[in-house]
Amino acid sequence: MLRGKIEIHNRVSIDSSSKTKNDILDLIYTPGVAFVAKKISTDKKLVYDYTSKWNNVAIVCDGTRVLGLGDIGPEGAIPVMEGKSVLFKVLGGVNAFPLCIDTTDKEEIIRFVKAIQPMFGAVNIEDIESPKVLEIVERLQKDLSIPVFHDDQHGTAIIALAGLLNALRLLQKRIDSIRVVIAGAGSAGYGIFRILKEAGCRNIVVTDSVGAIYENRIKGIDNPYKKEIADKTNPAKLSGSLSDVLKGTDVFIGVSGKAHLISKDMVQSMNHDSIVFALSNPDPEILPSDALEGGARIVATGSSDFPNQVNNAVVFPSILRALLDLRINTLSEDMLVSVATAIADIVDSNHLKYDYIIPKVDDPRIIHIVTDTLKNAIQRHLDKKKQQ
Amino acid sequence: MLRGKIEIHNRVSIDSSSKTKNDILDLIYTPGVAFVAKKISTDKKLVYDYTSKWNNVAIVCDGTRVLGLGDIGPEGAIPVMEGKSVLFKVLGGVNAFPLCIDTTDKEEIIRFVKAIQPMFGAVNIEDIESPKVLEIVERLQKDLSIPVFHDDQHGTAIIALAGLLNALRLLQKRIDSIRVVIAGAGSAGYGIFRILKEAGCRNIVVTDSVGAIYENRIKGIDNPYKKEIADKTNPAKLSGSLSDVLKGTDVFIGVSGKAHLISKDMVQSMNHDSIVFALSNPDPEILPSDALEGGARIVATGSSDFPNQVNNAVVFPSILRALLDLRINTLSEDMLVSVATAIADIVDSNHLKYDYIIPKVDDPRIIHIVTDTLKNAIQRHLDKKKQQ
Repeated sequence: MLRGKIEIHNRVSIDSSSKTKNDILDLIYTPGVAFVAKKISTDKKLVYDYTSKWNNVAIVCDGTRVLGLGDIGPEGAIPVMEGKSVLFKVLGGVNAFPLCIDTTDKEEIIRFVKAIQPMFGAVNIEDIESPKVLEIVERLQKDLSIPVFHDDQHGTAIIALAGLLNALRLLQKRIDSIRVVIAGAGSAGYGIFRILKEAGCRNIVVTDSVGAIYENRIKGIDNPYKKEIADKTNPAKLSGSLSDVLKGTDVFIGVSGKAHLISKDMVQSMNHDSIVFALSNPDPEILPSDALEGGARIVATGSSDFPNQVNNAVVFPSILRALLDLRINTLSEDMLVSVATAIADIVDSNHLKYDYIIPKVDDPRIIHIVTDTLKNAIQRHLDKKKQQ
Repeated sequence: MLRGKIEIHNRVSIDSSSKTKNDILDLIYTPGVAFVAKKISTDKKLVYDYTSKWNNVAIVCDGTRVLGLGDIGPEGAIPVMEGKSVLFKVLGGVNAFPLCIDTTDKEEIIRFVKAIQPMFGAVNIEDIESPKVLEIVERLQKDLSIPVFHDDQHGTAIIALAGLLNALRLLQKRIDSIRVVIAGAGSAGYGIFRILKEAGCRNIVVTDSVGAIYENRIKGIDNPYKKEIADKTNPAKLSGSLSDVLKGTDVFIGVSGKAHLISKDMVQSMNHDSIVFALSNPDPEILPSDALEGGARIVATGSSDFPNQVNNAVVFPSILRALLDLRINTLSEDMLVSVATAIADIVDSNHLKYDYIIPKVDDPRIIHIVTDTLKNAIQRHLDKKKQQ
């Protein structure tokens, strides 16, 4: 039995010859370490030079919305976060410590993340229920001096947009003229709506369990994030069910957590050359075979069982690697779009096909391209500020 | 530059051949991990089998009392805790995650440790100022289902008692007939007073910056731990300065944090064949050469610069290893005495000398002996309960 997928290693080799061993122990622990400790206490920036902070990411999870399993508690979340930690290491060279915590209280989670800030170069918020998590992320991004990434929101949005851009490229459609329906108004739905807006998409309708979200809808608009969706999407103020609003659209993006949410007939009601991203795990909103039979031209899911897996693992290791290396502490919406575009562009025209719109998770180009993209994005921000 | 002394490693090897790699990624992350996550959520004990919890220790520190440096903040504490993590790994095979936190509030620290409980098999509290830390440890030991070790209190007490037992063995003195003065009433002083009491020492006087602590002293008795010291030590109710109460004693144990606290003359005022443990770091209460000139027969310090280093690193890796392996969640005072006695006994009569009273940190027998000792101690507790 593996009994856990990760462990701590020392980066300094301790020789077994007893004399050397004691010398090294003196140096790395007391009394030798006092010198470094004192230096950091007088100049806190040095913590990046003298400790592992530069490469440490905290994966913070309260176990309330783990994978498609829901509220399984912090213990159940640990193997998932350990798996994530392995991917962070293998794909991004990042030390990601899972911290599955025994509190689901919003204010306590915020205090918790603030408390661990000294040890970590970045924070990855993971599998916490929405809308609580959206407020947690928003407030932490304001209050922390290290970057806060929310994979369910930002990671999913980036990789979904990357896939969509390539699908549109193949079908020669333009993002500013398509109609998109997003099923699900949780972290992923919110993140995708925001990134699509920023990428120039003008006609988005988001649905939740009540139906289409529109301006001044009363039922179930119970938090500022749904209110934001209501205000900024659905220009035609369509109401009705998912089935109603799906008619005549170009793109369906399912992040609803509900298996078999849409039928072949519903896909048939979409526009010609439709795109279906049924991203819920473990079971998609519609099986790819059914979507294709319903007339979809390009289908993607969240699963590796089918072609076109929209897999966050393409994004989170590389983006955290870049955030750590560049020491950025803000991640604006236009940066997310730039990263999505750069990831989409990794699949060149020679390789781009209906069943290959997203690069493989272990494509070695990803890290460099994401880092360069964010570096350029920061430069643009700085240039803009200078001009003002 | 080392830029940190520890890192995360994956325990599963990810083959670089792309097919295998993706298969393993599927297994250790989504979707494969869902099976294990669900199993744990229905039976929380399984978290010890399916995650790294069985071997994870959290080193929790708020940076308020780091080494002899005092309140240097959480960032300054990180290199110290990383060094500690290396020792945990090298000497005990334990995964110790340093969590240097940005809050010094007692209640927040308690909530913090409760929150991280799911991930860890044990907690090591470290370098938090006293008396706050004593209450934190006491309350956590009551409320957590995993063991809470406080190295400054329990670790120092065990290794000091181990050294003292061997010093007494050499000088053929009995613990129940010696007079001991402990200078310092912080975590270490409190821990040492408690372990000495439990070991049968009947005449202990503890001094703080005001002087000897005695029953009904009013000045500076401002917390329940000092009150406990006042009530349970100093049977003759001696008052006065350290210099006053040191006269005629057999043993001085300095954990005051004050360099040069005692003079050669003060050692001279002690009994014949006196024992001086000047344990403050980086500078001891008296230099060994001065103590010897003052008439001390056996001298120990906290530093590796002199013989007889009273080094917690003998204790904490082995005791946490044992706590994890045995899944004990209480650590009673008699267990601490048993461990100290067992560690003392590692130095056999052939090797025991005035300048060799404590085993070396990397003595491979320590771990086994500590584990066996705690196992027997638990058995004794269980037998006692059965008889009642």
